[in-house]
Amino acid sequence: MKTMYWMDNHLFLLDQTKLPDKVVYFECKTYGDVIHAIKTLMVRGAPAIGVAAAFGMALAELAGENLEKVAREIKEARPTAVNLFWAVDRLLEADSALDEALLMYEEDIETNRAMGKHGAKVVDDGDTILTHCNAGALACVDYGTALGVIRAAHDEGKRIKVVCDETRPVCQGARLSVFEMQQEDIPVKLIVDSAAGRLMQEGKINKVIIGADRVAKGGVANKIGSLMVALAAKRFKVPFYVAAPKSTFDYENSIYDIEIEERDPDEVLYFGECRVAPEGTEVENPAFDVVPSDIITGIITEDGILEPF
Amino acid sequence: MKTMYWMDNHLFLLDQTKLPDKVVYFECKTYGDVIHAIKTLMVRGAPAIGVAAAFGMALAELAGENLEKVAREIKEARPTAVNLFWAVDRLLEADSALDEALLMYEEDIETNRAMGKHGAKVVDDGDTILTHCNAGALACVDYGTALGVIRAAHDEGKRIKVVCDETRPVCQGARLSVFEMQQEDIPVKLIVDSAAGRLMQEGKINKVIIGADRVAKGGVANKIGSLMVALAAKRFKVPFYVAAPKSTFDYENSIYDIEIEERDPDEVLYFGECRVAPEGTEVENPAFDVVPSDIITGIITEDGILEPF
Repeated sequence: MKTMYWMDNHLFLLDQTKLPDKVVYFECKTYGDVIHAIKTLMVRGAPAIGVAAAFGMALAELAGENLEKVAREIKEARPTAVNLFWAVDRLLEADSALDEALLMYEEDIETNRAMGKHGAKVVDDGDTILTHCNAGALACVDYGTALGVIRAAHDEGKRIKVVCDETRPVCQGARLSVFEMQQEDIPVKLIVDSAAGRLMQEGKINKVIIGADRVAKGGVANKIGSLMVALAAKRFKVPFYVAAPKSTFDYENSIYDIEIEERDPDEVLYFGECRVAPEGTEVENPAFDVVPSDIITGIITEDGILEPF
Repeated sequence: MKTMYWMDNHLFLLDQTKLPDKVVYFECKTYGDVIHAIKTLMVRGAPAIGVAAAFGMALAELAGENLEKVAREIKEARPTAVNLFWAVDRLLEADSALDEALLMYEEDIETNRAMGKHGAKVVDDGDTILTHCNAGALACVDYGTALGVIRAAHDEGKRIKVVCDETRPVCQGARLSVFEMQQEDIPVKLIVDSAAGRLMQEGKINKVIIGADRVAKGGVANKIGSLMVALAAKRFKVPFYVAAPKSTFDYENSIYDIEIEERDPDEVLYFGECRVAPEGTEVENPAFDVVPSDIITGIITEDGILEPF
């Protein structure tokens, strides 16, 4: 199952808001459709957003749009993941936006496989690995970053188990990561986000591996809740790894200076059709938080395992 | 709105599984009805469970049951909160179970008011206070422990704001604590559990106050997620208080030796009628975790603020 594919000069995106119940592809005929899909989380995950944005630029090129203007619009779709900026800027410098997007599509899979190979070295036979949100094939073109490392270790014959945080409010852990692990026949267990600390307290978790929306000076921005998982890992001496391609690295900015996206209160107030809290409840819904460098064991990249900076 | 009341020799329990949408009382005609209500979370919160159990004993006494046998059955309803044990043992030594239960009912409110008075001293004008789960009037006969402290500070004229974690899986924070604060016109905001760390990282939280299911040697057992909130509070130097009546204290056992209740996977797999994860997903659902003493600032009791032991 591919997160996206290009066919007949249109981009087809797997609508991840409907997973795991329905496998439906959303056809993007214009770059506006791509922006809509990014904003509504039909496509999510830093690497996947980057490649989808690249195809958005290709659609704009085919339609004869002003690419500088389109680039600005696409960059505003989601402010935290740096891959969006990286992809769009790279496309602006390319001779053909479509050729470059297709190249990035292939590169993403290669990058993830390289990351998996490096990352698998820190996974031991018998490990139970906790992951937060979905940094899997569904967050990329294929294979995944954090779940790519797990896939690679599993493919090497290591007997591993995975624990997924449900990852409120949008439940990418419960809906997407559990689903991916089940597809691969990797033993997987679901917990609520707030149970991660308890499992570490009981010695039930050997490693934590998560993805990243941006790696910058001082730490890593990733899905809300990553910080609390990292603090628990620190307390209970569980190695805490971030798996992220170099395209996620921002050497310019402090992680504390970047914009953290605030999302729709309804994500928190409703679960599907089911309302969680009394009507009229005020909500704060930051999509990401920051894991400070001092509580990160290492960053798994396509070039090897690096120190946070 | 009372959590419970005694009328015509029956116990009426506010069915908290239906809040905030419906206000319905469940009539307990037998001690078996009380056990059912405790197990299914119609009544929850350590102090409320204690008093409900006492009325369960009173129902058994009126029916001429063997109280020693009934006591054993009631104690098995939920293993972690020590109030259940405390209440039932106290009733066994009483001349009249009903009189003693009615006394405990009144005492609970007095205890909470005393706790509120002591606890309000640590609350400053302008504070934003984070709370986890519901340690409010709904967790007691009335007034509440952690939310009792907030009520007392509010009644003293301190301008405070409250942030409630939603408290997955059963969402006592979103459904009950938000509701209680709205009823009191105390400004309240809802966040997902995993956002607590981010708000502290941003300096938006001045104090954390939670309840307790058991205070024992080495720490406090409370709703799953309390540990991760406490670790974030420690990291960001936010004072972390537990509000708990002395009936919650267990001086005999280490907090690491007590039984932590594992609850039904469906609590995690479903939100109301809405399914969260793929069918057949394996779940681990511990109801409580342990906050170690070294990361607790103080324990607010009816006798004043004590050090954890």
